[in-house]
Amino acid sequence: MAETVRRIEVSGPQPYTVEVGSGLLTRAQIAQSQIALIHPEDLPARFVTRVQATLSPVVTVVVPARDDCKTMQVMAGVLSHLAAANLPRDGAVVGLGGGAATDLAGFVAASYLRGVAFYTMPTTLLGMVDAAVGGKTGVNLPEGKNLVGAFWPPRAVWCDTDTLETLSPEVFREGAAEAYKHGLISDPTLLRRVLDPEFRPGGALLASTLADAIAVKAAVVSRDLTEQGERAHLNFGHTLAHALEAVTHHRLPHGEAVGYGMHYAARLSRVMGGEDLTGHTLAFLRWQRPTPLPDLDFQAVNTYMVRDKKADSLGVRFVLLRDLAQPYLARVPEALLRQEFEGWQADARGLPETPRAQEGT
Amino acid sequence: MAETVRRIEVSGPQPYTVEVGSGLLTRAQIAQSQIALIHPEDLPARFVTRVQATLSPVVTVVVPARDDCKTMQVMAGVLSHLAAANLPRDGAVVGLGGGAATDLAGFVAASYLRGVAFYTMPTTLLGMVDAAVGGKTGVNLPEGKNLVGAFWPPRAVWCDTDTLETLSPEVFREGAAEAYKHGLISDPTLLRRVLDPEFRPGGALLASTLADAIAVKAAVVSRDLTEQGERAHLNFGHTLAHALEAVTHHRLPHGEAVGYGMHYAARLSRVMGGEDLTGHTLAFLRWQRPTPLPDLDFQAVNTYMVRDKKADSLGVRFVLLRDLAQPYLARVPEALLRQEFEGWQADARGLPETPRAQEGT
Repeated sequence: MAETVRRIEVSGPQPYTVEVGSGLLTRAQIAQSQIALIHPEDLPARFVTRVQATLSPVVTVVVPARDDCKTMQVMAGVLSHLAAANLPRDGAVVGLGGGAATDLAGFVAASYLRGVAFYTMPTTLLGMVDAAVGGKTGVNLPEGKNLVGAFWPPRAVWCDTDTLETLSPEVFREGAAEAYKHGLISDPTLLRRVLDPEFRPGGALLASTLADAIAVKAAVVSRDLTEQGERAHLNFGHTLAHALEAVTHHRLPHGEAVGYGMHYAARLSRVMGGEDLTGHTLAFLRWQRPTPLPDLDFQAVNTYMVRDKKADSLGVRFVLLRDLAQPYLARVPEALLRQEFEGWQADARGLPETPRAQEGT
Repeated sequence: MAETVRRIEVSGPQPYTVEVGSGLLTRAQIAQSQIALIHPEDLPARFVTRVQATLSPVVTVVVPARDDCKTMQVMAGVLSHLAAANLPRDGAVVGLGGGAATDLAGFVAASYLRGVAFYTMPTTLLGMVDAAVGGKTGVNLPEGKNLVGAFWPPRAVWCDTDTLETLSPEVFREGAAEAYKHGLISDPTLLRRVLDPEFRPGGALLASTLADAIAVKAAVVSRDLTEQGERAHLNFGHTLAHALEAVTHHRLPHGEAVGYGMHYAARLSRVMGGEDLTGHTLAFLRWQRPTPLPDLDFQAVNTYMVRDKKADSLGVRFVLLRDLAQPYLARVPEALLRQEFEGWQADARGLPETPRAQEGT
């Protein structure tokens, strides 16, 4: 308990604090007296017990694991639980779990009685670095991911690093993709630290690296909550990533798709005249060791890229890098998208499936 | 077409204009090029055709009539229709119909892609005076009405008075309750005008009275969008009204419940030391001729009043009147709630079931 807790302030219309450290599940404090706790069924029971002992929720709602909880049907059921428990408008909703459960819990908080206080306790690396900060909440539709939701920032976020110790090494490396992305678009010191052997559950660099990766997102969303401009930079690597998730019917985990997508975006950045950052993105892929991809057809993948939620009536804009920490938005000619797709696929095929290779460049 | 269109400005973080007049369905203009139109199945086809010719929606979604459309299940289906039609984030949702359909359409607009532009075309008196202005959107749960939703103001509201000509006299008089309420809490000139024979579909006082009744709500929500304070005054008469709707399983229409509820609130106001305004509320009831009530047990009704959505952890506060246009919030001792309930029930039993009686006081 003597360990340092790192604090990141998120400013904007409704400021809040993200705390990162050990033992936070038993130290969280909430102003509201009546609390609904929402967590996925596969969360280790000891985490649920700790939070229940700390917050004494009036109702605990268990939801399906992973993205299975992100449906309108599950949401309707959760809302009914809250209403049956008479959660008042000055009550609060707490989401405990991975990004899927906290996305659902946030949309429930945004919608119940037209909005109650929301708090989040992410228990995965992706949940901490990406989902917990920024106020995006929502569920999926049969027609696509994250098509429904609200901007509903939490009042506080607690990232208890103890919860990461249950993650397998594969899931931990998967989740590191968003932290590495924050290194590329904003804080190059993260690139070396994310690949350091001490960036692991229980490792000496875990909390500090995590806190700095979260701080990148916090700074961006502080300046642009509703994605009018700069916030789009956080989508670096995500246009291809979402398409890869769709063509593989979500068998490719999000963090691995982002790993692949960052390398594609680095290749596009280079061909559009930017510095060559592909050494970094390849180094990350060698470290992450993602699931190998099947042979993919550019046309099939491009159909999904065009349909991406970030597209407006004029089509897709990619987030590219002029250099490290210099992101910008650009439309890329289709001939170049196709050419770099072929090169990217060749690079992906050449990845070793053996343990961590040495860093490139 | 030479008729005057009345305009009411709603200020606040996102200002918008309410237009009231004849022929507006064919004159509405919307900045967004891709539009989803949502309307109830029982809306006269000629209104739908007019709006389709005016706005050329990319998708029209028909929903069940009245409150049957205000469910999470219907909402999920509407959202899927929008996604299947690829409505983009710079598209718009237009709600055409009564308050239920526009409440649903607004919540769909608030949630689809985390929020797209919303416009509303109310076609009932209640929809125009109450639901269309103020940004409250949402659906019901099996556990209660309006328990889920968002504050999502429209970009514009068109109240085409031609649509009111399809309403039966009973439904028109029902809807007049909210206009009369606005007279009591803010603009006493409305009291005489709402009861005037020219306040009827096609009548000489229709548009002007409607516009002034809407202006009362517009002024209140301009100052208090999310119901932190003054907006609660709009709930005058609604605490008993919601309870009456619940105990009658919603067989009592909302406007009639509000008519009864205003008289109860006027009795409470008098016993709590205010001016005697019961002559006004009785005059309205004699004009409205609501469905007679069964014998009601105070305890049963009070249980619902205590559970009202407006209650916080401390219990129910009633909106009372010191005098015309002088609303305030107060907790009322249960002994007085019971005593005035008995008196109110006696008054309600004494209402004539014959055509309009002369005004009291």
